[in-house]
Amino acid sequence: MALSMEKAIESLYEAKKYQTLRDILSSQNEADIASFFSGVKEEALPVLFRLLPKDLAADTFALMEPEDRELLIHGFSDSELKEVIDELYVDDAVDIVDEMPANVVKRILKNADPEKRQMINEILKYPEDSAGSLMTVEYISLRPKMTVSDAIKRIRRKVHETETIYTCYVTDDNRRLLGYISVRTLLLAGEKEKIEDLMDTPVCVNTLDDKEDVAKKMNKYDFVAMPVVDDEMRLVGIVTFDDAIDVLQEETTEDIEIMAAMAPAEESYFKTSDLKHARNRIVWLLVLMLSATLTGSILAYYESAFESVPILVSFIPMLMGTGGNCGSQSSTMIIRGMSVDEIQLKDFFKVVWMEFRISLILSFSLAIVNGLRILVFYRDVTLAVVISLSIIGTVIMAELIGCMLPMIAKKCRLDPAVMAAPIITTVVDALCIVLYFNIALKFFNI
Amino acid sequence: MALSMEKAIESLYEAKKYQTLRDILSSQNEADIASFFSGVKEEALPVLFRLLPKDLAADTFALMEPEDRELLIHGFSDSELKEVIDELYVDDAVDIVDEMPANVVKRILKNADPEKRQMINEILKYPEDSAGSLMTVEYISLRPKMTVSDAIKRIRRKVHETETIYTCYVTDDNRRLLGYISVRTLLLAGEKEKIEDLMDTPVCVNTLDDKEDVAKKMNKYDFVAMPVVDDEMRLVGIVTFDDAIDVLQEETTEDIEIMAAMAPAEESYFKTSDLKHARNRIVWLLVLMLSATLTGSILAYYESAFESVPILVSFIPMLMGTGGNCGSQSSTMIIRGMSVDEIQLKDFFKVVWMEFRISLILSFSLAIVNGLRILVFYRDVTLAVVISLSIIGTVIMAELIGCMLPMIAKKCRLDPAVMAAPIITTVVDALCIVLYFNIALKFFNI
Repeated sequence: MALSMEKAIESLYEAKKYQTLRDILSSQNEADIASFFSGVKEEALPVLFRLLPKDLAADTFALMEPEDRELLIHGFSDSELKEVIDELYVDDAVDIVDEMPANVVKRILKNADPEKRQMINEILKYPEDSAGSLMTVEYISLRPKMTVSDAIKRIRRKVHETETIYTCYVTDDNRRLLGYISVRTLLLAGEKEKIEDLMDTPVCVNTLDDKEDVAKKMNKYDFVAMPVVDDEMRLVGIVTFDDAIDVLQEETTEDIEIMAAMAPAEESYFKTSDLKHARNRIVWLLVLMLSATLTGSILAYYESAFESVPILVSFIPMLMGTGGNCGSQSSTMIIRGMSVDEIQLKDFFKVVWMEFRISLILSFSLAIVNGLRILVFYRDVTLAVVISLSIIGTVIMAELIGCMLPMIAKKCRLDPAVMAAPIITTVVDALCIVLYFNIALKFFNI
Repeated sequence: MALSMEKAIESLYEAKKYQTLRDILSSQNEADIASFFSGVKEEALPVLFRLLPKDLAADTFALMEPEDRELLIHGFSDSELKEVIDELYVDDAVDIVDEMPANVVKRILKNADPEKRQMINEILKYPEDSAGSLMTVEYISLRPKMTVSDAIKRIRRKVHETETIYTCYVTDDNRRLLGYISVRTLLLAGEKEKIEDLMDTPVCVNTLDDKEDVAKKMNKYDFVAMPVVDDEMRLVGIVTFDDAIDVLQEETTEDIEIMAAMAPAEESYFKTSDLKHARNRIVWLLVLMLSATLTGSILAYYESAFESVPILVSFIPMLMGTGGNCGSQSSTMIIRGMSVDEIQLKDFFKVVWMEFRISLILSFSLAIVNGLRILVFYRDVTLAVVISLSIIGTVIMAELIGCMLPMIAKKCRLDPAVMAAPIITTVVDALCIVLYFNIALKFFNI
């Protein structure tokens, strides 16, 4: 919806031309309406929302911002609330229940019809981040002995209450998953053919599987929906692709935040309070600050060295910076590689050997550039040798630490993303200072 | 496919039990077969591949690793190659053509049937990273005056040659996009209803739109497929959700690599040569190393200060480290926020003001902890004041630079991800040294 359209709606609202407004809104896509609603005045929102046809209202409601939804729910009569909730797909209803304050949840559950309430409660009992918590319990199940025309009849009957109809699941009398079949296959097959002859072997996940693994598996198989089964292989729900994409995006954001030494935010940037932002950042800042004082003490220990050759101090930022950058480059490659499953733990030695070879190329190139620069500017061969050797040592060490720490973290069942730039840099800083001054002490005979 | 299954297949292969092998492989999912094939011996691959039924062979081929595919193509007779290519969907064929060496491409195009060849060439002419390069030209189009039963007949006729059938596109006589309709809507509607009365207003992208924007738009609308139109609104193809997910993942990996000061890799970690890895990393390392020497020169300028109060040197790692970490935290939040469209350029002052408030909380907390630590360990009030003031200044400066630079980069149409930790750190390092020694000079009367 372009900007001019928003202005038009606003002036129609001011002029109370509700019939025209209803016609305009009805022709729009729910995602556009939802984002338009987030910019609308508080008092206009309930009026505009009530203008939407029932179906579109529910679809829009599912896509709106949580606070807009809460605002609407507070203004709803019980019968209005019931109408919206009953139109929602169960997985969307669960998302909404999840984010609302307790008193609103009570009202929602009280006003949902009993069948829907039971489905919502069913999903709410699964642990956060599990496949069960992400799934919807509305899907189309078929029996193996059905004919194609039976199946199509069943789909037509179920289509209005199911989010994803294009893959149907074949189950036995005990709800055990036997296979899946797409509407595409049904359309290609003869009317009399049996489902059991057409269905594919099931690919599925368990209710307790981690939702990130579920999303990755769906991506691997290019599935629009993934069946979720319990320990007895009984089908309990499906995860749809739109939720899988959101999971992939959220998990990546979380990784990126952890890699920058922050606790992952639960809400979007602007919705998080200053204090919450600060709390997400302060823990690691404190830890890293205190660790850096260790580097400081090491530096103090070599006071005699830079008292006799003060110029040594001026190379510290360059050495520490280069070490930190090398370490963060290699740790980033490894963390991302593991997160998209390109790098496995069994590749440990292969990775270390590869990073070692890369570090040789990098360290000698950087050492040569720096050595020449020092020869030209300072005309001091000893200084050039000391700095070049320190660079070589620092870069090799940084690359190796950068690639090993994330893999070791994973081995210890920690999140590899923790071992990213900030920690690597702090470790490398300390070691780099020790290396640098030991080389300097040797060559300058201090 | 579990490990035991792989062993079983290998021994069946050694024993030349091809019929059993064919039965086993036919029952498997194409994604599993493709990943199994990537671990198989070179000489076994063509044999195993030829055992697959035609459909499954093409589906598997589309999912295999590029080098496995090249191996197979080299061994194919022209008629075998033709068979595989003709079974592939056009967008998969284009991906394969894109990654093959020129001589293989020639063979593929020569052996594709003329219609498919034309479709492949059609897509190849669009710029890399455009919606056109990502789309497939196989989709189902309907006319507005068709009835539902006409439409279903047409879908049945087209289903075998189209990747995505569940959304159909309504076009006029000049191929202009008028709307879209899902198979779900068709199944719910009466047989005699007209398509034009059932279809939804089209949401579409232009052939030249950036593929990342296309993927984000699909995610916003939860579309399984997105229609691609030319400047005259003529429908030329569709982008399917599996390709959109891959784009989102690739773009994120690229962002993360750029944020760690690397040129984005074109291939996966292990497929990139040492030299290529080194080349991707060295440019920024050199730039940042030389920039850090500037910080070194600034440090040298304050030689007199740390000659009279040598303990000052030992706080440099802590100050530079903390500044770098604060800057990388805020730049990471802003870069990711912009990349998932949570933060817009128009929010510039809102963001700066928010980061300023956060930096006040962070800087005072860190300053107090550090000030107390210094009082306890060194019993030196002046030193405690100097370090605390320097921390406050550094943190506030780092947070502001960290949030502003990525937004300024975006304003200048540069990739905001460039303005991440490494550059921010280098800038903050230099400014932090100036600040620190100026405060120290004042308080110690040097």
